[in-house]
Amino acid sequence: MTAEIISIGDELLIGQTVNTNASWIGMECSLRGIRNNFVTVISDDEQAIRDAVGVAVKRSDIVFITGGLGPTKDDITKFTLADYFQTKLKCHEPTLKRIEAFFSSRNRPMLEANIRQADLPVDAVILDNIYGTAAGMWFEKEGCIVISMPGVPYEMKGIMLNEVFPRLVQKGNLVSLYHYTLMTQGIGESFLADKISNWEERVRNAGLGLAYLPSPGMVKLRLTSYEGAQRKNEIEKFFKELQDSFPRYVYGIQDESLSEVVGKLLMKNGSTLGSVESCTGGALAHSLISVPGSSEYFQGSLITYSNQLKVQLAGVVQDHISEYTAVSKVVVEEMAIYGRIKLGVDYCISTSGIAGPDGGTDEIPVGSVWVAVSDKNGVESHCFRFGDNRERNIQMTVLTALNMLRCRILGISFEKK
Amino acid sequence: MTAEIISIGDELLIGQTVNTNASWIGMECSLRGIRNNFVTVISDDEQAIRDAVGVAVKRSDIVFITGGLGPTKDDITKFTLADYFQTKLKCHEPTLKRIEAFFSSRNRPMLEANIRQADLPVDAVILDNIYGTAAGMWFEKEGCIVISMPGVPYEMKGIMLNEVFPRLVQKGNLVSLYHYTLMTQGIGESFLADKISNWEERVRNAGLGLAYLPSPGMVKLRLTSYEGAQRKNEIEKFFKELQDSFPRYVYGIQDESLSEVVGKLLMKNGSTLGSVESCTGGALAHSLISVPGSSEYFQGSLITYSNQLKVQLAGVVQDHISEYTAVSKVVVEEMAIYGRIKLGVDYCISTSGIAGPDGGTDEIPVGSVWVAVSDKNGVESHCFRFGDNRERNIQMTVLTALNMLRCRILGISFEKK
Repeated sequence: MTAEIISIGDELLIGQTVNTNASWIGMECSLRGIRNNFVTVISDDEQAIRDAVGVAVKRSDIVFITGGLGPTKDDITKFTLADYFQTKLKCHEPTLKRIEAFFSSRNRPMLEANIRQADLPVDAVILDNIYGTAAGMWFEKEGCIVISMPGVPYEMKGIMLNEVFPRLVQKGNLVSLYHYTLMTQGIGESFLADKISNWEERVRNAGLGLAYLPSPGMVKLRLTSYEGAQRKNEIEKFFKELQDSFPRYVYGIQDESLSEVVGKLLMKNGSTLGSVESCTGGALAHSLISVPGSSEYFQGSLITYSNQLKVQLAGVVQDHISEYTAVSKVVVEEMAIYGRIKLGVDYCISTSGIAGPDGGTDEIPVGSVWVAVSDKNGVESHCFRFGDNRERNIQMTVLTALNMLRCRILGISFEKK
Repeated sequence: MTAEIISIGDELLIGQTVNTNASWIGMECSLRGIRNNFVTVISDDEQAIRDAVGVAVKRSDIVFITGGLGPTKDDITKFTLADYFQTKLKCHEPTLKRIEAFFSSRNRPMLEANIRQADLPVDAVILDNIYGTAAGMWFEKEGCIVISMPGVPYEMKGIMLNEVFPRLVQKGNLVSLYHYTLMTQGIGESFLADKISNWEERVRNAGLGLAYLPSPGMVKLRLTSYEGAQRKNEIEKFFKELQDSFPRYVYGIQDESLSEVVGKLLMKNGSTLGSVESCTGGALAHSLISVPGSSEYFQGSLITYSNQLKVQLAGVVQDHISEYTAVSKVVVEEMAIYGRIKLGVDYCISTSGIAGPDGGTDEIPVGSVWVAVSDKNGVESHCFRFGDNRERNIQMTVLTALNMLRCRILGISFEKK
């Protein structure tokens, strides 16, 4: 099955918004054996929409359109498609009810423009949007499926996952691919490839697809069976080998986040967690609480961004900051040790570093970060050197700290080999 | 001058790489008065390249092509374009010297495939790539300029900034597009459109472009003059009207974040800030410290996720949690008032809510959030009802809290009108 994507919106053409929708749809399609061959970005312009759809329906089995379904005057996708497919708009009662419920649950009045969003093409299958007011639409013409969805990413994703893919499965349009992913942290793509080259050769000889999917601080390994889930056990065996050989890097499977993995370990042991954060400034706590149910183990944090609060709240010795600076083994260990007591938790993670872009020195350049983890047996700390990018340094520190805690709980050495 | 972008590469189609090149080129073009009308993403396939270029040269003045110039077998862009423009490849001596220098400076051996990268079309202007081995190419045909560049972002950017734009300036004739954006928080797209419909009519009658660019919790308004910066004052006057009429919503201009705006206000007044966070769990602090230099005003936070820490660290009265629950006006105000003292700051923001997806009750459903801001004059708090999505609720709370602080500092009423 071949697909293409038409993304509508001036904001994409002039670069105010990056087209992450197209990436997401392309990725989700390829995971389901649908081959995406084209992405076309156009403006909210009637002729441009008609032309793009006209070309697309001739060369693809399915066309995903995003954008231009809002309630404002520049949103013309729905009207243009209704005209293109020669169908009329009519109030779709279930959608109107949904829009009414959307506004009443938020205690907000509904405007005429919102009511008009329930006017939908009579010849389209209407796809429920559970996160917003613009419904999706499914047209069919000459053997081609054309799907129109709002451009707001989480609304589009909801419609794709809840409405579009289930319908494609039902229609029997999807071939059976089986994917299994292994999550690693703390090792770069080329180093990983070098370490596992023999394993990779055996995987490829077994006729399995292998992809390295790197993102800052992490590399995801994806194995694909072209014969569906029947090779699940074989794939799991391949992954088990890597888990046993590299426990410090391999932390989980199937898109699990480190926060989820750490959370499960803590829940299993009935342990509690807190953090004392300087350079991550709350990003570590935020990552931990992004897991639903994290209140079971996560108690709280001290964000000691200023040195004064490091002393006052976390119990760091003032003289140690003066002597060693705040980005030092001594200070980060004190943050973890005393923070554990102040927060009354079983494990405490602490971070202190120079996130950048300024603030570095010859001795402690931008990107230098200390991370410590304390528990009832003591404290361990490690120093890292990330790059020049502030937000990236913060994210790398969060992932590294979570992996350090995971290794500490499991008794795995965190030293790089 | 109209432009379009052709991005070549399977990794873009299957979502392994997000097409940031197209965003960057679109943005840089619009800043220089070149109107980008299309982005087309295709695979490394000869026919797809020929088709896309064929369509593009007919409808655009300039075509930017990225990708497919590497040394491997699947990189066919150069050969396809040479064939399309009916020109021969020949070794380009300055490029060969550059490639040789590139490898010798890195102490790496040069392969035959790299030498072949210096074979370039005789009828193209060669564009130096100072960061890599694949040179850029500038073709002209029937009044259309076609530019081919490597897909590696920093190599492409170098060629655009050092070679392409200077040549376009030299050729003159660029019409000048001028964009100006106004940032709003706390009002939905359709409500905003409704409130400003008269203003919008006047803007459109004045021949200016207007776009609503919504993202969770925010709507960006973009005005565009097709006659360049000479209408800057007029646009600023239009925006000034909105700023004066809706100071509670309009918080800034030109892609400023609320954290930046709040940071500037605090620095101007020499004030300090801290937070006591429950449902946002550090996300508010993280947003504040994402601004470089935020240590000037941001001191730190207490992340009191558990009720016990709300009492122990933030000084909330235990009986008040029992009587009113943790998601209440009384508790969130105590968090802000006592937190301000514990953290020793001028302003303290506090948050407490049900982020979801579970934990709601009939009285306090998922998405209910209390936010308070305290200063030397007292405390103010407001209750909000967001949706069902955990991460979105956290982000909405962060933006709302920052806007509440901004209004408090500026003496703007935060009540919805």
